[in-house]
Amino acid sequence: MEAGHARSSLRFYFDYVSPYAYLAWTQIHAVAARHGREVDPIPVLFAGLLAAHGTLGPAEIPAKRRYIYRDAIRTALRLGVAFEPPPAHPFNPLLSLRVSSLAIATDQRRALIDALFAATWAGGGGIAGPADVARAVQRAGLDGEALVAAAAGDEAKQRLRRDTDEAIAAGAFGVPTIIADGELFWGFDSLANLEAFLRGDAAIDADVTAQWESLPAAATRKLPSAPP
Amino acid sequence: MEAGHARSSLRFYFDYVSPYAYLAWTQIHAVAARHGREVDPIPVLFAGLLAAHGTLGPAEIPAKRRYIYRDAIRTALRLGVAFEPPPAHPFNPLLSLRVSSLAIATDQRRALIDALFAATWAGGGGIAGPADVARAVQRAGLDGEALVAAAAGDEAKQRLRRDTDEAIAAGAFGVPTIIADGELFWGFDSLANLEAFLRGDAAIDADVTAQWESLPAAATRKLPSAPP
Repeated sequence: MEAGHARSSLRFYFDYVSPYAYLAWTQIHAVAARHGREVDPIPVLFAGLLAAHGTLGPAEIPAKRRYIYRDAIRTALRLGVAFEPPPAHPFNPLLSLRVSSLAIATDQRRALIDALFAATWAGGGGIAGPADVARAVQRAGLDGEALVAAAAGDEAKQRLRRDTDEAIAAGAFGVPTIIADGELFWGFDSLANLEAFLRGDAAIDADVTAQWESLPAAATRKLPSAPP
Repeated sequence: MEAGHARSSLRFYFDYVSPYAYLAWTQIHAVAARHGREVDPIPVLFAGLLAAHGTLGPAEIPAKRRYIYRDAIRTALRLGVAFEPPPAHPFNPLLSLRVSSLAIATDQRRALIDALFAATWAGGGGIAGPADVARAVQRAGLDGEALVAAAAGDEAKQRLRRDTDEAIAAGAFGVPTIIADGELFWGFDSLANLEAFLRGDAAIDADVTAQWESLPAAATRKLPSAPP
Protein backbone atom coordinates (compact mmCIF):
# COMPACT_ATOMS: atom_id res chain seq x y z
CA MET A 1 0.00 0.00 0.00
CA GLU A 2 1.41 3.36 -0.94
CA ALA A 3 1.81 5.92 1.80
CA GLY A 4 -0.87 8.58 1.80
CA HIS A 5 -3.42 6.44 -0.03
CA ALA A 6 -4.81 4.60 2.99
CA ARG A 7 -8.64 4.38 3.05
CA SER A 8 -8.86 6.39 -0.14
CA SER A 9 -11.86 5.90 -2.37
CA LEU A 10 -11.99 3.19 -5.04
CA ARG A 11 -11.52 4.83 -8.43
CA PHE A 12 -13.93 2.99 -10.74
CA TYR A 13 -13.11 3.64 -14.43
CA PHE A 14 -15.90 2.55 -16.76
CA ASP A 15 -17.58 2.88 -20.14
CA TYR A 16 -21.24 1.96 -20.70
CA VAL A 17 -20.24 -0.05 -23.76
CA SER A 18 -18.78 -2.80 -21.56
CA PRO A 19 -21.09 -5.46 -20.09
CA TYR A 20 -18.40 -6.25 -17.55
CA ALA A 21 -18.34 -2.62 -16.41
CA TYR A 22 -22.09 -2.93 -15.82
CA LEU A 23 -21.69 -6.18 -13.90
CA ALA A 24 -18.89 -4.70 -11.79
CA TRP A 25 -20.96 -1.55 -11.13
CA THR A 26 -23.72 -3.75 -9.66
CA GLN A 27 -21.19 -5.13 -7.13
CA ILE A 28 -18.63 -2.41 -6.42
CA HIS A 29 -20.70 -0.49 -3.88
CA ALA A 30 -21.09 -3.58 -1.70
CA VAL A 31 -17.36 -4.31 -2.03
CA ALA A 32 -16.54 -0.73 -1.01
CA ALA A 33 -19.01 -0.78 1.90
CA ARG A 34 -17.51 -4.01 3.27
CA HIS A 35 -14.16 -2.27 3.53
CA GLY A 36 -15.23 1.22 4.59
CA ARG A 37 -14.46 2.79 1.24
CA GLU A 38 -16.27 5.16 -1.08
CA VAL A 39 -16.62 4.62 -4.84
CA ASP A 40 -15.39 7.36 -7.16
CA PRO A 41 -16.92 6.57 -10.59
CA ILE A 42 -14.87 7.90 -13.50
CA PRO A 43 -16.27 7.66 -17.05
CA VAL A 44 -13.60 6.97 -19.69
CA LEU A 45 -13.75 6.21 -23.40
CA PHE A 46 -12.86 2.50 -23.80
CA ALA A 47 -12.05 3.09 -27.49
CA GLY A 48 -9.44 5.62 -26.32
CA LEU A 49 -7.78 2.98 -24.13
CA LEU A 50 -7.76 0.48 -27.01
CA ALA A 51 -6.27 3.04 -29.39
CA ALA A 52 -3.56 3.98 -26.87
CA HIS A 53 -2.51 0.34 -26.51
CA GLY A 54 -2.96 -0.58 -30.19
CA THR A 55 -5.20 -3.49 -29.39
CA LEU A 56 -8.67 -4.79 -30.23
CA GLY A 57 -11.70 -4.74 -27.98
CA PRO A 58 -13.61 -7.96 -27.37
CA ALA A 59 -16.44 -6.82 -29.65
CA GLU A 60 -13.91 -6.48 -32.49
CA ILE A 61 -12.88 -10.16 -32.47
CA PRO A 62 -15.87 -12.20 -33.72
CA ALA A 63 -15.21 -15.34 -31.64
CA LYS A 64 -14.65 -13.22 -28.53
CA ARG A 65 -17.70 -11.08 -29.20
CA ARG A 66 -19.84 -14.21 -29.34
CA TYR A 67 -18.25 -15.52 -26.15
CA ILE A 68 -18.40 -12.44 -23.95
CA TYR A 69 -22.13 -12.18 -24.19
CA ARG A 70 -22.58 -15.78 -23.11
CA ASP A 71 -20.09 -15.27 -20.30
CA ALA A 72 -21.68 -12.01 -19.15
CA ILE A 73 -25.19 -13.45 -19.10
CA ARG A 74 -24.01 -16.49 -17.12
CA THR A 75 -22.31 -14.18 -14.63
CA ALA A 76 -25.44 -12.03 -14.35
CA LEU A 77 -27.49 -15.16 -13.63
CA ARG A 78 -25.02 -16.21 -10.91
CA LEU A 79 -25.24 -12.71 -9.38
CA GLY A 80 -29.00 -12.46 -9.80
CA VAL A 81 -28.82 -9.16 -11.68
CA ALA A 82 -30.90 -8.17 -14.70
CA PHE A 83 -29.14 -8.54 -18.04
CA GLU A 84 -30.39 -7.93 -21.58
CA PRO A 85 -28.54 -6.93 -24.72
CA PRO A 86 -28.89 -3.29 -25.82
CA PRO A 87 -30.56 -2.56 -29.19
CA ALA A 88 -27.14 -2.26 -30.89
CA HIS A 89 -23.58 -3.07 -29.89
CA PRO A 90 -21.04 -1.60 -30.03
CA PHE A 91 -22.67 1.84 -29.91
CA ASN A 92 -21.25 5.34 -29.51
CA PRO A 93 -21.16 6.02 -25.75
CA LEU A 94 -19.72 9.55 -25.93
CA LEU A 95 -22.83 11.49 -24.96
CA SER A 96 -23.68 9.22 -22.03
CA LEU A 97 -20.06 9.39 -20.82
CA ARG A 98 -20.05 13.19 -21.09
CA VAL A 99 -23.33 13.46 -19.18
CA SER A 100 -21.76 11.26 -16.50
CA SER A 101 -18.70 13.53 -16.40
CA LEU A 102 -20.71 16.62 -15.41
CA ALA A 103 -20.03 18.08 -11.99
CA ILE A 104 -23.06 16.94 -9.98
CA ALA A 105 -23.60 15.70 -6.44
CA THR A 106 -22.28 12.24 -5.54
CA ASP A 107 -25.70 10.67 -4.93
CA GLN A 108 -27.08 12.12 -8.14
CA ARG A 109 -24.10 10.84 -10.10
CA ARG A 110 -24.60 7.35 -8.75
CA ALA A 111 -28.31 7.42 -9.66
CA LEU A 112 -27.44 8.78 -13.11
CA ILE A 113 -24.89 6.02 -13.75
CA ASP A 114 -27.31 3.38 -12.42
CA ALA A 115 -29.92 4.63 -14.87
CA LEU A 116 -27.59 4.75 -17.87
CA PHE A 117 -26.22 1.28 -17.17
CA ALA A 118 -29.78 -0.06 -16.74
CA ALA A 119 -30.81 1.58 -20.00
CA THR A 120 -27.90 -0.18 -21.70
CA TRP A 121 -27.75 -3.65 -20.13
CA ALA A 122 -31.01 -4.17 -18.29
CA GLY A 123 -33.63 -3.72 -20.97
CA GLY A 124 -33.93 0.06 -20.78
CA GLY A 125 -33.92 0.68 -24.52
CA GLY A 126 -30.32 1.69 -25.05
CA ILE A 127 -28.46 5.01 -24.93
CA ALA A 128 -27.56 5.43 -28.58
CA GLY A 129 -29.22 8.81 -29.18
CA PRO A 130 -29.72 12.06 -27.20
CA ALA A 131 -33.41 11.28 -26.57
CA ASP A 132 -32.47 7.85 -25.15
CA VAL A 133 -29.86 9.41 -22.89
CA ALA A 134 -32.26 12.15 -21.73
CA ARG A 135 -34.93 9.54 -20.96
CA ALA A 136 -32.50 7.48 -18.88
CA VAL A 137 -31.31 10.57 -17.00
CA GLN A 138 -34.93 11.50 -16.30
CA ARG A 139 -35.49 8.07 -14.75
CA ALA A 140 -32.72 8.95 -12.28
CA GLY A 141 -34.88 11.87 -11.12
CA LEU A 142 -32.74 14.45 -12.91
CA ASP A 143 -33.49 16.90 -15.71
CA GLY A 144 -32.62 14.84 -18.78
CA GLU A 145 -32.82 17.59 -21.38
CA ALA A 146 -30.80 20.05 -19.31
CA LEU A 147 -28.02 17.55 -18.60
CA VAL A 148 -27.84 16.37 -22.20
CA ALA A 149 -27.55 20.01 -23.28
CA ALA A 150 -24.84 20.65 -20.67
CA ALA A 151 -22.93 17.57 -21.85
CA ALA A 152 -22.36 19.24 -25.21
CA GLY A 153 -20.27 21.90 -23.49
CA ASP A 154 -16.50 22.02 -23.35
CA GLU A 155 -16.29 21.20 -19.66
CA ALA A 156 -17.77 17.71 -20.00
CA LYS A 157 -15.79 17.00 -23.17
CA GLN A 158 -12.53 18.09 -21.61
CA ARG A 159 -13.15 16.21 -18.40
CA LEU A 160 -13.84 12.96 -20.26
CA ARG A 161 -10.72 13.41 -22.37
CA ARG A 162 -8.59 14.23 -19.32
CA ASP A 163 -9.94 11.28 -17.32
CA THR A 164 -9.35 8.89 -20.23
CA ASP A 165 -5.76 10.15 -20.54
CA GLU A 166 -5.25 9.81 -16.80
CA ALA A 167 -6.57 6.24 -16.86
CA ILE A 168 -4.12 5.37 -19.65
CA ALA A 169 -1.27 7.02 -17.75
CA ALA A 170 -2.24 4.98 -14.66
CA GLY A 171 -1.87 1.76 -16.68
CA ALA A 172 -5.50 1.05 -17.56
CA PHE A 173 -5.98 -0.94 -20.78
CA GLY A 174 -9.61 -1.96 -20.37
CA VAL A 175 -12.83 -1.37 -18.47
CA PRO A 176 -13.82 -1.70 -15.78
CA THR A 177 -10.56 -0.77 -14.06
CA ILE A 178 -10.55 -0.14 -10.33
CA ILE A 179 -7.62 1.65 -8.73
CA ALA A 180 -7.35 1.17 -4.97
CA ASP A 181 -4.47 2.77 -3.06
CA GLY A 182 -2.54 3.05 -6.31
CA GLU A 183 -3.04 -0.63 -7.25
CA LEU A 184 -4.88 -1.50 -10.46
CA PHE A 185 -7.56 -4.19 -10.82
CA TRP A 186 -8.97 -4.95 -14.25
CA GLY A 187 -12.28 -6.49 -15.10
CA PHE A 188 -15.29 -7.84 -13.29
CA ASP A 189 -13.24 -10.93 -12.52
CA SER A 190 -10.72 -8.97 -10.48
CA LEU A 191 -13.21 -8.17 -7.71
CA ALA A 192 -12.12 -11.21 -5.65
CA ASN A 193 -8.50 -10.09 -5.84
CA LEU A 194 -9.54 -6.51 -5.05
CA GLU A 195 -11.31 -7.71 -1.93
CA ALA A 196 -8.28 -9.73 -0.83
CA PHE A 197 -6.17 -6.60 -1.36
CA LEU A 198 -8.58 -4.42 0.65
CA ARG A 199 -8.53 -6.97 3.48
CA GLY A 200 -4.73 -6.81 3.46
CA ASP A 201 -4.37 -10.44 2.30
CA ALA A 202 -2.39 -11.45 -0.73
CA ALA A 203 0.27 -8.79 -0.34
CA ILE A 204 2.60 -9.30 -3.26
CA ASP A 205 6.34 -9.14 -3.08
CA ALA A 206 7.75 -6.06 -4.78
CA ASP A 207 11.01 -7.91 -5.56
CA VAL A 208 9.14 -10.65 -7.40
CA THR A 209 7.00 -8.23 -9.38
CA ALA A 210 10.12 -6.24 -10.27
CA GLN A 211 11.73 -9.50 -11.41
CA TRP A 212 8.73 -10.16 -13.68
CA GLU A 213 8.80 -6.67 -15.10
CA SER A 214 12.45 -7.05 -16.09
CA LEU A 215 12.22 -10.62 -17.44
CA PRO A 216 13.75 -11.11 -20.85
CA ALA A 217 11.50 -12.24 -23.68
CA ALA A 218 12.83 -15.49 -25.16
CA ALA A 219 10.32 -15.51 -28.01
CA THR A 220 8.43 -12.84 -29.90
CA ARG A 221 5.86 -13.04 -32.68
CA LYS A 222 5.71 -10.94 -35.77
CA LEU A 223 2.95 -8.65 -34.57
CA PRO A 224 -0.03 -7.11 -36.27
CA SER A 225 0.81 -3.58 -37.41
CA ALA A 226 0.29 -0.71 -35.00
CA PRO A 227 -2.97 1.16 -35.47
CA PRO A 228 -2.92 4.24 -37.65
CA MET B 1 -26.68 -29.12 -23.21
CA GLU B 2 -26.26 -30.67 -26.63
CA ALA B 3 -27.63 -34.16 -27.14
CA GLY B 4 -24.96 -36.84 -27.10
CA HIS B 5 -22.51 -34.76 -25.08
CA ALA B 6 -23.90 -35.57 -21.63
CA ARG B 7 -21.19 -36.40 -19.05
CA SER B 8 -18.51 -36.01 -21.67
CA SER B 9 -15.02 -35.07 -20.54
CA LEU B 10 -13.94 -31.45 -20.08
CA ARG B 11 -11.70 -30.52 -23.00
CA PHE B 12 -8.96 -28.35 -21.45
CA TYR B 13 -7.04 -26.40 -24.12
CA PHE B 14 -3.81 -24.91 -22.82
CA ASP B 15 -0.35 -23.54 -23.54
CA TYR B 16 2.42 -23.47 -20.93
CA VAL B 17 3.13 -19.85 -21.80
CA SER B 18 -0.07 -18.73 -20.02
CA PRO B 19 -0.01 -18.21 -16.23
CA TYR B 20 -3.80 -18.46 -16.25
CA ALA B 21 -3.61 -21.86 -17.95
CA TYR B 22 -1.34 -22.96 -15.09
CA LEU B 23 -3.71 -21.58 -12.45
CA ALA B 24 -6.70 -23.23 -14.13
CA TRP B 25 -4.79 -26.54 -14.40
CA THR B 26 -4.29 -26.50 -10.61
CA GLN B 27 -8.11 -26.34 -10.18
CA ILE B 28 -9.71 -28.14 -13.14
CA HIS B 29 -9.31 -31.67 -11.77
CA ALA B 30 -11.23 -30.78 -8.60
CA VAL B 31 -13.92 -29.06 -10.68
CA ALA B 32 -14.22 -32.15 -12.89
CA ALA B 33 -14.30 -34.52 -9.91
CA ARG B 34 -17.11 -32.53 -8.25
CA HIS B 35 -19.24 -33.12 -11.33
CA GLY B 36 -18.24 -36.67 -12.23
CA ARG B 37 -16.26 -35.61 -15.29
CA GLU B 38 -12.86 -36.45 -16.68
CA VAL B 39 -10.33 -33.87 -17.91
CA ASP B 40 -9.02 -34.20 -21.46
CA PRO B 41 -5.96 -31.92 -21.64
CA ILE B 42 -5.23 -30.63 -25.16
CA PRO B 43 -2.02 -28.65 -25.80
CA VAL B 44 -2.46 -25.84 -28.34
CA LEU B 45 -0.18 -23.06 -29.56
CA PHE B 46 -1.53 -19.81 -28.07
CA ALA B 47 0.37 -17.81 -30.70
CA GLY B 48 -1.59 -19.73 -33.34
CA LEU B 49 -4.88 -18.63 -31.76
CA LEU B 50 -3.72 -15.00 -31.63
CA ALA B 51 -2.61 -15.10 -35.26
CA ALA B 52 -5.93 -16.62 -36.36
CA HIS B 53 -7.87 -13.83 -34.65
CA GLY B 54 -5.44 -11.02 -35.58
CA THR B 55 -5.08 -9.90 -31.99
CA LEU B 56 -2.38 -9.32 -29.40
CA GLY B 57 -1.59 -11.53 -26.43
CA PRO B 58 -1.44 -9.98 -22.97
CA ALA B 59 2.35 -10.20 -22.93
CA GLU B 60 2.41 -8.07 -26.11
CA ILE B 61 0.70 -5.04 -24.51
CA PRO B 62 3.13 -3.54 -21.99
CA ALA B 63 0.50 -2.28 -19.50
CA LYS B 64 -1.34 -5.60 -19.66
CA ARG B 65 1.86 -7.59 -19.34
CA ARG B 66 2.68 -5.70 -16.15
CA TYR B 67 -0.83 -6.23 -14.83
CA ILE B 68 -1.33 -9.92 -15.57
CA TYR B 69 1.60 -10.95 -13.46
CA ARG B 70 0.29 -9.01 -10.46
CA ASP B 71 -3.17 -10.45 -11.03
CA ALA B 72 -1.89 -14.01 -11.46
CA ILE B 73 0.25 -13.87 -8.31
CA ARG B 74 -2.68 -12.49 -6.28
CA THR B 75 -4.88 -15.28 -7.58
CA ALA B 76 -2.23 -17.88 -6.75
CA LEU B 77 -2.02 -16.50 -3.21
CA ARG B 78 -5.82 -16.73 -2.84
CA LEU B 79 -5.72 -20.33 -4.09
CA GLY B 80 -2.66 -21.26 -2.05
CA VAL B 81 -0.73 -22.54 -5.06
CA ALA B 82 2.98 -21.99 -5.77
CA PHE B 83 3.72 -19.22 -8.27
CA GLU B 84 7.04 -17.88 -9.53
CA PRO B 85 7.97 -16.25 -12.81
CA PRO B 86 9.86 -18.42 -15.32
CA PRO B 87 13.42 -17.38 -16.32
CA ALA B 88 12.10 -15.67 -19.48
CA HIS B 89 8.66 -14.73 -20.79
CA PRO B 90 7.29 -15.09 -23.36
CA PHE B 91 9.29 -18.18 -24.34
CA ASN B 92 8.92 -20.67 -27.17
CA PRO B 93 6.63 -23.43 -25.84
CA LEU B 94 6.63 -25.61 -28.98
CA LEU B 95 8.79 -28.47 -27.70
CA SER B 96 6.93 -28.75 -24.40
CA LEU B 97 3.59 -28.67 -26.23
CA ARG B 98 4.73 -31.35 -28.67
CA VAL B 99 5.97 -33.57 -25.83
CA SER B 100 2.56 -33.13 -24.23
CA SER B 101 0.87 -34.11 -27.51
CA LEU B 102 2.51 -37.55 -27.62
CA ALA B 103 0.21 -40.53 -27.30
CA ILE B 104 0.83 -41.68 -23.73
CA ALA B 105 -1.35 -43.06 -20.93
CA THR B 106 -3.78 -40.64 -19.27
CA ASP B 107 -2.10 -40.73 -15.84
CA GLN B 108 1.32 -40.24 -17.37
CA ARG B 109 0.06 -37.31 -19.44
CA ARG B 110 -1.34 -35.64 -16.36
CA ALA B 111 1.94 -36.11 -14.47
CA LEU B 112 3.86 -34.81 -17.48
CA ILE B 113 1.71 -31.68 -17.73
CA ASP B 114 1.93 -31.14 -13.97
CA ALA B 115 5.71 -31.28 -14.23
CA LEU B 116 5.95 -28.94 -17.23
CA PHE B 117 3.61 -26.39 -15.65
CA ALA B 118 5.56 -26.58 -12.38
CA ALA B 119 8.83 -26.12 -14.26
CA THR B 120 7.34 -22.99 -15.86
CA TRP B 121 5.31 -21.30 -13.11
CA ALA B 122 6.36 -22.87 -9.83
CA GLY B 123 10.08 -22.28 -9.72
CA GLY B 124 11.17 -25.31 -11.72
CA GLY B 125 13.71 -23.51 -13.89
CA GLY B 126 11.69 -23.02 -17.06
CA ILE B 127 11.16 -25.09 -20.18
CA ALA B 128 12.93 -22.98 -22.76
CA GLY B 129 15.41 -25.58 -24.05
CA PRO B 130 15.36 -29.34 -24.75
CA ALA B 131 17.42 -30.11 -21.63
CA ASP B 132 14.93 -28.14 -19.47
CA VAL B 133 12.00 -30.00 -20.99
CA ALA B 134 13.72 -33.39 -20.58
CA ARG B 135 14.49 -32.59 -16.93
CA ALA B 136 10.86 -31.66 -16.23
CA VAL B 137 9.61 -34.82 -17.97
CA GLN B 138 12.03 -36.88 -15.91
CA ARG B 139 10.56 -35.38 -12.72
CA ALA B 140 7.21 -36.83 -13.83
CA GLY B 141 8.79 -40.30 -13.68
CA LEU B 142 9.06 -40.58 -17.46
CA ASP B 143 12.03 -40.94 -19.81
CA GLY B 144 12.82 -37.29 -20.55
CA GLU B 145 15.33 -37.84 -23.34
CA ALA B 146 13.18 -40.42 -25.15
CA LEU B 147 10.07 -38.23 -25.06
CA VAL B 148 11.93 -35.11 -26.19
CA ALA B 149 13.34 -37.12 -29.08
CA ALA B 150 9.88 -38.47 -29.95
CA ALA B 151 8.45 -34.94 -29.86
CA ALA B 152 10.64 -34.03 -32.83
CA GLY B 153 8.71 -36.54 -34.96
CA ASP B 154 5.92 -35.72 -37.36
CA GLU B 155 3.19 -37.27 -35.24
CA ALA B 156 3.58 -34.82 -32.34
CA LYS B 157 3.97 -31.86 -34.69
CA GLN B 158 0.89 -32.77 -36.68
CA ARG B 159 -1.19 -33.47 -33.62
CA LEU B 160 -0.35 -30.08 -32.09
CA ARG B 161 -1.15 -28.30 -35.35
CA ARG B 162 -4.42 -30.21 -35.76
CA ASP B 163 -5.49 -29.58 -32.16
CA THR B 164 -4.69 -25.86 -32.46
CA ASP B 165 -6.76 -25.68 -35.65
CA GLU B 166 -9.61 -27.56 -33.98
CA ALA B 167 -9.56 -25.18 -31.03
CA ILE B 168 -9.77 -22.19 -33.39
CA ALA B 169 -12.62 -23.84 -35.29
CA ALA B 170 -14.42 -24.44 -31.98
CA GLY B 171 -14.24 -20.70 -31.22
CA ALA B 172 -11.22 -20.57 -28.90
CA PHE B 173 -9.35 -17.25 -28.93
CA GLY B 174 -7.24 -17.67 -25.80
CA VAL B 175 -5.97 -20.11 -23.20
CA PRO B 176 -7.06 -21.76 -21.08
CA THR B 177 -10.26 -22.65 -22.90
CA ILE B 178 -12.48 -25.37 -21.52
CA ILE B 179 -15.15 -26.93 -23.69
CA ALA B 180 -17.88 -28.78 -21.79
CA ASP B 181 -20.77 -30.38 -23.68
CA GLY B 182 -20.03 -28.11 -26.63
CA GLU B 183 -20.03 -24.90 -24.52
CA LEU B 184 -16.88 -22.78 -24.36
CA PHE B 185 -15.40 -21.26 -21.19
CA TRP B 186 -12.39 -18.98 -21.47
CA GLY B 187 -9.84 -18.17 -18.83
CA PHE B 188 -9.17 -19.02 -15.24
CA ASP B 189 -11.96 -16.62 -14.31
CA SER B 190 -14.59 -18.69 -16.12
CA LEU B 191 -14.33 -21.61 -13.69
CA ALA B 192 -17.23 -20.30 -11.56
CA ASN B 193 -19.44 -20.07 -14.64
CA LEU B 194 -18.24 -23.52 -15.76
CA GLU B 195 -19.27 -24.97 -12.42
CA ALA B 196 -22.71 -23.33 -12.61
CA PHE B 197 -23.07 -24.81 -16.10
CA LEU B 198 -22.03 -28.29 -14.93
CA ARG B 199 -24.55 -28.08 -12.08
CA GLY B 200 -27.24 -27.22 -14.61
CA ASP B 201 -27.69 -23.69 -13.19
CA ALA B 202 -27.45 -20.58 -15.29
CA ALA B 203 -28.94 -22.12 -18.41
CA ILE B 204 -28.92 -19.35 -20.99
CA ASP B 205 -31.72 -18.62 -23.37
CA ALA B 206 -30.84 -19.54 -26.96
CA ASP B 207 -33.17 -16.83 -28.28
CA VAL B 208 -31.37 -14.13 -26.30
CA THR B 209 -27.93 -15.31 -27.35
CA ALA B 210 -29.10 -15.47 -30.97
CA GLN B 211 -30.40 -11.91 -30.55
CA TRP B 212 -26.96 -10.79 -29.32
CA GLU B 213 -25.20 -12.55 -32.17
CA SER B 214 -27.31 -10.72 -34.72
CA LEU B 215 -27.22 -7.26 -33.05
CA PRO B 216 -26.29 -4.44 -35.36
CA ALA B 217 -23.14 -2.46 -34.59
CA ALA B 218 -24.03 1.22 -34.18
CA ALA B 219 -20.39 2.30 -33.93
CA THR B 220 -17.11 0.94 -35.25
CA ARG B 221 -13.53 2.11 -34.84
CA LYS B 222 -10.90 2.31 -37.52
CA LEU B 223 -9.08 -0.87 -36.55
CA PRO B 224 -5.40 -1.76 -36.45
CA SER B 225 -4.39 -3.52 -39.67
CA ALA B 226 -4.73 -7.27 -39.89
CA PRO B 227 -1.54 -9.18 -39.19
CA PRO B 228 0.60 -10.12 -42.18
